[in-house]
Amino acid sequence: MEKFPITDKTKITRLPKRGVYDKETVYQILDEALFCTIAYVHEGQPFQIPTGFVRIGNKLYIHGSVGSFYMRELRDKKPPICVSATLIDGMVLARSAFHHSVNYRSVVVFGEPQLVSDKEELYKALEVFTEKMCPGRWSDVRKPTDNEWKETMVLSIEIAEASAKVRTGGPKDDEEDYAMNVWAGVLPLKIQKLELVPDELLKSGVDVPEYLK
Amino acid sequence: MEKFPITDKTKITRLPKRGVYDKETVYQILDEALFCTIAYVHEGQPFQIPTGFVRIGNKLYIHGSVGSFYMRELRDKKPPICVSATLIDGMVLARSAFHHSVNYRSVVVFGEPQLVSDKEELYKALEVFTEKMCPGRWSDVRKPTDNEWKETMVLSIEIAEASAKVRTGGPKDDEEDYAMNVWAGVLPLKIQKLELVPDELLKSGVDVPEYLK
Repeated sequence: MEKFPITDKTKITRLPKRGVYDKETVYQILDEALFCTIAYVHEGQPFQIPTGFVRIGNKLYIHGSVGSFYMRELRDKKPPICVSATLIDGMVLARSAFHHSVNYRSVVVFGEPQLVSDKEELYKALEVFTEKMCPGRWSDVRKPTDNEWKETMVLSIEIAEASAKVRTGGPKDDEEDYAMNVWAGVLPLKIQKLELVPDELLKSGVDVPEYLK
Repeated sequence: MEKFPITDKTKITRLPKRGVYDKETVYQILDEALFCTIAYVHEGQPFQIPTGFVRIGNKLYIHGSVGSFYMRELRDKKPPICVSATLIDGMVLARSAFHHSVNYRSVVVFGEPQLVSDKEELYKALEVFTEKMCPGRWSDVRKPTDNEWKETMVLSIEIAEASAKVRTGGPKDDEEDYAMNVWAGVLPLKIQKLELVPDELLKSGVDVPEYLK
């Protein structure tokens, strides 16, 4: 199994058993996460941007308007950035307050932003963006015009260093607490799709497509 | 309505109509979010920690082991930090790829970490932590022992500067695209609680409590 190297920046010192470096796990978490946060430093001050993203191969892609301040900052200064994505899988309810925990899968990535100017790479990134939001969507919608391409900036981040941290399973209580009359276990959580809300201006006669049912 | 001041750090320049500074909205988003990410700078490099948190009044609280490297860093160096929390409410499916969007509510907070040593404040923070995970839980479980308190570090972050960014509603398409035979609207998303998974070592005869049903 291919792994990311353990570096000074990605070494997990607290609860190292939760650390995961294999690329498959890191990629799966990134692919499932609906957003990431980008952290960068501006004049010594940390900033964070929550944003949508996709992964293709060993690169992350983010996009935004060419007028966006932080996109320009990242494009022009290419600062070292830290990206994180987190999935919450459940609340772990132990018999003691102290042993309460959360089942989660998180990834932290270190890298540098790079402007994507290759048209094929740009097009692919936007296609994967749309397909991540809604599989099947890309072939159904109007593709970007030349002007829309000019208004869109795409940055790639080669995943130079990365680690995942994963907790699964039930609570771990102290020996003497297992005799308590307290319910213990996991409350699993999942992001669910609710009923579709059609646009008020939806053209009459347009049905919900198969890929959205 | 009480508002956070608009500062150089929290001024929303891109799509300013999405910027929200009223405390009530900022607090609601923070209270609903199951985790936040803490960004800080270490030797010029940005780092991010995804972690659980609670808000009490105008303060955020995070906790961890006294052995945790980053908790010690934050306690000892009190660096400027940036905290963000994001909720994804739905995928906005437009008729054109370009106008696809996401309904979200996000908050970015700037502040400094401070060690909580006051016992009452510490106790309150842990109680709210447990209650945020599962309302009704605190009164049901074993409270921390003196040793457990010694192993737990709680840091507070007074919300010095904060802003929220919110998108709601349906897609906004280009005039000429409304005639297209493409379904458009919103796919709402929500974090759902699934069926409880009892601990394998659950004492027999212990039922699921009312507050978990």
